[in-house]
Amino acid sequence: SRAFQPEFVESISNVSVAVGRDATFTCHVRHLGGYRVGWLKADTKAIQAIHENVITHNPRVTVSHLDQNTWNLHIKAVSEEDRGGYMCQLNTDPMKSQIGFLDVVIPHHHHHH
Amino acid sequence: SRAFQPEFVESISNVSVAVGRDATFTCHVRHLGGYRVGWLKADTKAIQAIHENVITHNPRVTVSHLDQNTWNLHIKAVSEEDRGGYMCQLNTDPMKSQIGFLDVVIPHHHHHH
Repeated sequence: SRAFQPEFVESISNVSVAVGRDATFTCHVRHLGGYRVGWLKADTKAIQAIHENVITHNPRVTVSHLDQNTWNLHIKAVSEEDRGGYMCQLNTDPMKSQIGFLDVVIPHHHHHH
Repeated sequence: SRAFQPEFVESISNVSVAVGRDATFTCHVRHLGGYRVGWLKADTKAIQAIHENVITHNPRVTVSHLDQNTWNLHIKAVSEEDRGGYMCQLNTDPMKSQIGFLDVVIPHHHHHH
């Protein structure tokens, strides 16, 4: 049995970006050991990625990691349907998860009368 | 572009088993091509498996497949907390999914007065 179970060290920051811009969520963990970090879209439950592997065929989704503690989900050129929660999930038993929210902002057009 | 997108050919059958027995869900697909079949517990969103790889560290969960069209999720020695929906997910864009439900039956003990 392991001395340490993986755990989250801070919350996922929510992200607010203009439509068409890129968004990144970062999941901060420690004691990951042989466990893996997964990303899901929380509302649809669509698996985005497991560890270093993108699962969705959405070509705008990629993942990266800085080290074993810092895991990123990148969404390029966000559209309105990308809005909502994104879950970072550790494959412990029981599973551990946390959620960050993406808000997609539609730029306000000033109408001149 | 592919001539065929993967799709489900029938619904997942619901499963009802006595506590302690084993349960299997089967996901029937066609035209899977290079796409992958994922399994999640629907309520917690815990990823159970992707294709041939078990993701959860729950030692009672395994997967198997008969051919490229028939994908199984096996849960050994079910307990009451295993109750609920299990989602079979195809990593298309947009994602396709269907859910089967596990009921765990507690045997009725006859009390003799």
